[in-house]
Amino acid sequence: MTETDESGEDAKPPIDFYFDFSSPYGYLAAHKIGEMAGLYGREVDWKPVLLGVIFKATGAQPLLDIPIKGDYARRDMDRTARMMGLPFVLPEVMPFPSVPAARAVYWTKDRHPDKAVALVKALYDEAFARGGDIRGAEAVARIAGTVGLDAGELTAALGDPAVKERLKTEIEAAMQAGVCGSPFFVVDGEPFWGADRLDHVERWLATGGW
Amino acid sequence: MTETDESGEDAKPPIDFYFDFSSPYGYLAAHKIGEMAGLYGREVDWKPVLLGVIFKATGAQPLLDIPIKGDYARRDMDRTARMMGLPFVLPEVMPFPSVPAARAVYWTKDRHPDKAVALVKALYDEAFARGGDIRGAEAVARIAGTVGLDAGELTAALGDPAVKERLKTEIEAAMQAGVCGSPFFVVDGEPFWGADRLDHVERWLATGGW
Repeated sequence: MTETDESGEDAKPPIDFYFDFSSPYGYLAAHKIGEMAGLYGREVDWKPVLLGVIFKATGAQPLLDIPIKGDYARRDMDRTARMMGLPFVLPEVMPFPSVPAARAVYWTKDRHPDKAVALVKALYDEAFARGGDIRGAEAVARIAGTVGLDAGELTAALGDPAVKERLKTEIEAAMQAGVCGSPFFVVDGEPFWGADRLDHVERWLATGGW
Repeated sequence: MTETDESGEDAKPPIDFYFDFSSPYGYLAAHKIGEMAGLYGREVDWKPVLLGVIFKATGAQPLLDIPIKGDYARRDMDRTARMMGLPFVLPEVMPFPSVPAARAVYWTKDRHPDKAVALVKALYDEAFARGGDIRGAEAVARIAGTVGLDAGELTAALGDPAVKERLKTEIEAAMQAGVCGSPFFVVDGEPFWGADRLDHVERWLATGGW
């Protein structure tokens, strides 16, 4: 059974894009994946997760806290952003709690789906294009207001048990899908980890695999 | 003060290429970095290290042993090798001790420098193109014989305290240079970690940085 769109052609499934709002490489990928998907007639399913939960399963440490590797990573993030032509400023606190931001995205996907992508990019830009603080519910609601969402309605939603549960369920599903870091992409069942795998993702979209 | 070659042009310094023989991505990079360097008039300084020593400083675990991430990594290595057009077979024991292989390379660089690159590639190919076992001194000496080195002379050298000390010194220097994984490249002072940074390396060689 295949889905068909209005033109009668087979509708291809979306690219699953998993990311933590505290992930610098997730920010970089968020500015590339939508356009890339569009070139191949694909949508993107934007799925924030919490690396803190995933790292409990993998035993990983926050990248920037690791001796030697953390210093390298700061340099690599900055260089990669310059290569991609994106502004980049590391927030003061890294990694930072991203629960309100993640919940806000799932709520927006359900209630105001046309604003979800803009919200993801606005939150990421506040954190990594300007080095701002998006940890708290107030900051998230304020940024949501800039993309046309109702800040009061969103603030109420962030405390809703159903919204909290939704994020938990999504993270469990992500771990079942093998998500081990951020950014992480799944294209037609094939997993790709890292902004540095965008070239693999594009080739997979173009060729169907190799 | 700048060095000049016979043509009178400035001689550019070599690319430092650090790798562990037990590193699959090191194998992939070893088949690309020499040709890439040559395109930009550069030599490569081939520097085997031991990730076991480096990981003690960074707290890292062997990649393939990490829950969830290890499964992903197996898939990514295989896919990356296919994309690069290189054969790839994972040896049964991973990671494996690579002390004799590393010592053999430094001894060869000192005594028979014209055979050092061939030795690196022959060792790596035995491990990752054919899934062979290069852990022991006997295996290393046998492979050295295939590139025109004297197996007996090499076997004697592997037990030489000066050769043992040489490897230790090189690893200490690598850590001082910020090496946190394999493969790792330093181009004119700029560090790059991972086979997936070869595109950055090439652009750095072409442009002098960005």
